[in-house]
Formats: sequence, structure tokens, C-alpha cells
Amino acid sequence: MPSPKHVPVVIVGAGPAGLLLGQLLYQAGIDNIILEQRSPDYVLGRIRAGVLEQVSMDLLREAGAGANMDRHGLHHHGIELLFAGQRHRIDLHGLTGGKYVMVYGQTEVTRDLMQVRAEEGLATVYEAAHVQPRDYDGEQPRVRWEKDGELHEVRCDFIAGCDGFHGACRASIAPERIRHYEKVYPFGWLGLMSDTPPVSKELIYVNSERGFALCSQRSLTRSRYYLQVPLSDKVEDWSDEAFWEELRRRLDPEARERLVTGASIEKSIAPLRSFVCEPMRFGRMFLAGDAAHIVPPTGAKGLNLAASDVGYLSRAFIDYFKNKSTHGIDHYSEQCLKRVWKAERFSWWMTSLMHNFPEEGAFHTRVQEAELDYLVHSRAASTSLAENYVGLPMA
Amino acid sequence: MPSPKHVPVVIVGAGPAGLLLGQLLYQAGIDNIILEQRSPDYVLGRIRAGVLEQVSMDLLREAGAGANMDRHGLHHHGIELLFAGQRHRIDLHGLTGGKYVMVYGQTEVTRDLMQVRAEEGLATVYEAAHVQPRDYDGEQPRVRWEKDGELHEVRCDFIAGCDGFHGACRASIAPERIRHYEKVYPFGWLGLMSDTPPVSKELIYVNSERGFALCSQRSLTRSRYYLQVPLSDKVEDWSDEAFWEELRRRLDPEARERLVTGASIEKSIAPLRSFVCEPMRFGRMFLAGDAAHIVPPTGAKGLNLAASDVGYLSRAFIDYFKNKSTHGIDHYSEQCLKRVWKAERFSWWMTSLMHNFPEEGAFHTRVQEAELDYLVHSRAASTSLAENYVGLPMA
Repeated sequence: MPSPKHVPVVIVGAGPAGLLLGQLLYQAGIDNIILEQRSPDYVLGRIRAGVLEQVSMDLLREAGAGANMDRHGLHHHGIELLFAGQRHRIDLHGLTGGKYVMVYGQTEVTRDLMQVRAEEGLATVYEAAHVQPRDYDGEQPRVRWEKDGELHEVRCDFIAGCDGFHGACRASIAPERIRHYEKVYPFGWLGLMSDTPPVSKELIYVNSERGFALCSQRSLTRSRYYLQVPLSDKVEDWSDEAFWEELRRRLDPEARERLVTGASIEKSIAPLRSFVCEPMRFGRMFLAGDAAHIVPPTGAKGLNLAASDVGYLSRAFIDYFKNKSTHGIDHYSEQCLKRVWKAERFSWWMTSLMHNFPEEGAFHTRVQEAELDYLVHSRAASTSLAENYVGLPMA
Repeated sequence: MPSPKHVPVVIVGAGPAGLLLGQLLYQAGIDNIILEQRSPDYVLGRIRAGVLEQVSMDLLREAGAGANMDRHGLHHHGIELLFAGQRHRIDLHGLTGGKYVMVYGQTEVTRDLMQVRAEEGLATVYEAAHVQPRDYDGEQPRVRWEKDGELHEVRCDFIAGCDGFHGACRASIAPERIRHYEKVYPFGWLGLMSDTPPVSKELIYVNSERGFALCSQRSLTRSRYYLQVPLSDKVEDWSDEAFWEELRRRLDPEARERLVTGASIEKSIAPLRSFVCEPMRFGRMFLAGDAAHIVPPTGAKGLNLAASDVGYLSRAFIDYFKNKSTHGIDHYSEQCLKRVWKAERFSWWMTSLMHNFPEEGAFHTRVQEAELDYLVHSRAASTSLAENYVGLPMA
């Protein structure tokens, strides 16, 4: 397929953000092309989040890619917090007037979006090397890339940078035009995926003397567990046996008893980072998702923020192409960042609340204990956690 | 008046905690003596807190010292938060099912308690030097002191250490028996008292680019204002004019306009500290109030925690003397500390939320802004602030 000379929107990145945006635009009759540096298998191989908010579910359905999620996703009406050896349930559903989250893996979301895109015959260029967004400060941006040794270029009205934290779009911006905000946490998450039934129906967030742990899941037969580990640890240091043994020690007796262990199908260590780039618009280029911001995974907000970004962005583009209004694109950055910072705040707070920070001293540990105790016994505090966890509404 | 050979309870410290405890015990028929290192005028000259929770009001009334408070105290049904140039009211009353706080100065509380104690003819030894609590690990503690060059000693069943952060009681305990938790904040509060009408009916907590400020009050004609200042500042560096000018800059235009300035009647700089000593019982000696814990003043919790400590302690002593039960004294430390840590958590949180922490970086500032914005727009988050501000119930 030869590249077109011009498309309204060039999307850089075929992760869930780029694919979702492409689909939302297609549904509104706006043509787009997606350029992706990696192969489809590589994209699908990245193990990421597994919890969708209401806003994300709605957008996937609107994009025509919600059928599998609605068939196979698990409705979670609560989460559990384990601390001081006891589990306490946060009734997300009851505290938020009936909202819930959907447990459905990012890999599955991506696969569903790839499939609908393929069915519609929309242009996606995988293994596009040296992607270069250009001239986005003028009226006619262009994007260049190389594929199989050949140079390609397409003109467009807008560029959507959905290419992640290390992507080409943000990297192309002159540093003096960007304000960065960043916080790096002094530990990482060691994650293990296994084809074993989850230890509990709902997710368990664990604050233990030995460090944070999370009992998560992707389905009724696939579990995803995490352990807080020092940043100096290497994944090779952790045998499956050592992982399960350490996880057991961080659980309560009942969960310890129920835990079903098995061979890992994936195991990796991820650092925890908070990062925001301001603004999110540069002329006719718009950043969305991880290209503009990173949250530590504790609040399950990364994929959901990417979804709401492209929700705003698709509306803005539709407003421009259908109604000749620049209102949406002019307010995109401000609108996104308001929501992004709330999610950054929540993710930072939940990370601070649940992890061990030995370098912060004993006062911090006691404050953590007091806050957890207050949190589960105050309806107001539990509601605040719940309304953030299920996702604040899109403005 | 010669000292008695034995009293059931020796109270060290004639601040509000010691005086309130003495009165609560007296009402229950339990004799006590209070030893105070300073003079009555010195004690009354200490300018401290001015906001009473429901629990504190109730205890003052129970102690027979609530009449003036009920006549002259101001019921505050809300507080205001000023940030990003705008004021937002937190409806304490509406959010907590009808609770409120009472604005009534600590000096007045102390004077009222001194007066009822004097009327009852109860023993208070002022200017008692070198107070020494002794033998509290045995069955018969003693307290020694010097007065006018003479050595005195009294035997007792219990010692109540209500003698503040720098007092003799905690200092008498072997360091290895105490666990300390402490956090020192990188700024102080410069306070100014003036006989001017308050700028607003309710307290205004200010987060500004120039630092925190608080518009507080003691009555309809006496104002108390505070400014966050570097710890290196000296009170001599701050003329009244400089104070008012800096306060004006941190206020919104309407408040700036309404602010009535005047000569200071007191001006001082206080450092901010979080401190907890565990446990709060050592044999037959019990610590209460600032002797056991300090909070930064942002949450208005210092005096209120002292009141609830002595509330628990009076109940425990009554239980012991009237019902021959050691349940109260055995659980005193645990019971207090549960409440203390919640108030420590709240005071730390409110301090973190409202002050400038340049050394924490721009990410922290943005998170603060997001939290303030979330706080005033979420009923759950506002309720959580309100229920802590009016005071969690005593267990």
C-alpha cells in the first residue's frame, strides 16, 4: 500500500492510545494513519495495566472495540486493603453510587483495537523507523519515516503523539518549550504473571513490614502479582520460588493459605515514576498518554489517563473537522492537564500510602498506619479513595 | 499551706491540660495537687491555640469551667481555604451533621480553669522549682520540688505529667524506655496578635506563592495572624508594617481591602514540629498533652489533643478509685495514641497541603494545587477534612 500524500491526522504509536484515537476518529469519518516503530507482536508482548475505569470502557465501546471486553472482562465492585495483618474491603460500588472497574488486560484491549482496525482496512505502518514529526508549528505539518530502507513522508492537518515516554514526538520538541515535573520513587515493582487462579476475587493492595505487594489478575485463570523490591534488584535474582515465598510472607494467613502458585509466564522489574510534561499541545502536534505523562501503577491510572486524553483529543478533532471550531484543540492541553494532575495526585498518594519508605523514618511509617486505619473506618475517606479509583468523570 | 503527706494524684504542670485534669478529678471527688514551675502570669502570658473541638468544649463544661466559653466563645461553622487567588468555604457544620468549632483562646481557657480551681480552694503550687517525679515504677510514687529554698515531697498513687514538651516528667524517664517519632518542618510561623477586628468572620487558611498565611482570631475585636517564614528569620526583623504588608500580599483582593491593621500586642516566631513519645504510661506516671506529643498548629489540634488525653486519663483514674478497675489505666496509652496518631496524620497533611516546600520541587507544588482543587470540589474529600477539623470522636 503506497502512503497517501495527505491525511487529516497522523497518529504516532500503535499502543492502546493511538489505536483508540484512530478508531474514534474513523467512527466520526476522519481518516488517519498510524505509524508504529515496533512490530504488532512486540506491542502485544508488553505486559501493562489491567484495570479499566468507566470512562475507558465507554470510549472502547464508542470505538466499536468493546465487545470482547464486555464478554470477558470482570466487573470488580471493590478492592481490599491489607495492613497490620488484616484485610479491609473498600466497597467501590456502594461508595460511588454504583460505579465499578473492569479487569481486562491492556494486551487484550490492544488486540481488540488492532482487530477492529484491521477489519476496517485502516492504514497502520508497523516497523516504521526514524519517525520524524515536522513543521507542526506551521499550517501544514509533515511526518517522515523509513520503512524497508525507503523514506516516506505524509502531510497532515494534525499529528497525535501517542508514542509513549520514549517516543519521537516529545523528543522532537525544543526543550525550552516544555516544563517537566518528575518524581522517581526509591523502589521498583517486580511483577509475575502466571496461569493460576487469582488468590481472591478482588484485587488486594498490601502494606506490610516487608514492603508493598499487589494481588492483581487478568482473568479467572490468569494472575498478576507484584512485590515492592529495591531498585538494585535484578529480575535474574528472583526465581519463581523466591517470588512466591516472599509474596506469601506479605499476605494474611487466609490469603497465604489460598494462594495457588505456578510457573511464571512473564517476570519483570519496573521502576516507579511520576512525570508530567506541560503543555500537551505544540502547534498542530498533540501529545497523549505516556508521551505526556507517567504515573506509578499503584492507582491503576496509566491506561485510563491515556484513554481520557484521546477521548478529549478525538472530540477536539471532530469539533475542528465537522464544526470548523478550534475550541477543542485550543483547550485540549488545559483540559487534559486538569484531569492528569488529579490522577498524578491520587497515584502519588496511593503509592506513598502503601509502600515502605525506610529513608523517610519512623514518623512516616506511623502516619501511614494512622492514615490506613482512618481511611477504612471513615466513610468520607473511603469514598474519596473509591471515587478516584473508579475514575473522576471527564469534564 | 503545708504540703500534704499523700494525695491520690499529683499533677505536674498548670497549663490547660493539668488544670482541666485537676478539675475533672475534683468533680469526681478525687483529690489532687498541681505543681507548676512558672508563675500564674507567665502561664497566662503564653499565646497559644484558639480553636476548640466539640470534645474539648464538652470536657470544659464537665469540669465546671465552660460558662465563659459558652458566653464569649464564637461558634464557627466553616473555614475558608484560599489558593490560586480564590477563597473556597468548607462547610464544617453541613458536612459533619451539625458539628462546629469554638473560637476561644487558650489564655481564656486557662484563666477560666484557674478561677474555678481557686474558687474551690484546690492546691496549686506555682514557682515550684526542680520538680522530680520519683519511684513511679513502684506502688508508691513520690514527687519532690523546691519552693522558696525549701524541699517538699508528697507521696501519691499516680503522677500526671502535664508539663509540656520541655517538662520534667518525660525528662525523668530512662531514654531506652521511650520510642520517639519526630518531624521538623523547614519553616516557622510568625504570629501577630492585635486588637483589631478579624478580616473575616471565619478563619482563612492561605496557600499562596509567597507562602502560607492564616487569618485567625480570638474574639470579634482581637485578631491573630500568621505568616510562614524561613527558620532563619528573627522576630526583630519584622516590623508591624512589614508583617501587614506581607500578609496583604498573600491575601485575595477582597480580604486585602477589608484587612484592618493596628499595633501588635504580641509577635513571635514558632517552629513547626511533629513529635510523639510512645508509650504514654510509665508505671504509675502518665504523660498527657505536649509532654507526650506535639503537632504543627495548622490543624488546630494541640490543645484539643491535650484535652482528650486528660479526658481519657480522668476516666481511667475515676475507674481506678471508684470501681477498683485498672482497665482504664492499662489501656490509657493505647487509647490516647490511637487518637494522637490520627491527629498527627491530619496536622502533618494540612501542613503539607498549605505551605510552600521549595526544596520538594515543582512536582510537589503541582500535586498540592491538584489536591486543593480536588478537595474543594469533592464532597467526600471536603467531608474528610471537616470531620478531622471538628475533631474525631473520643472512643
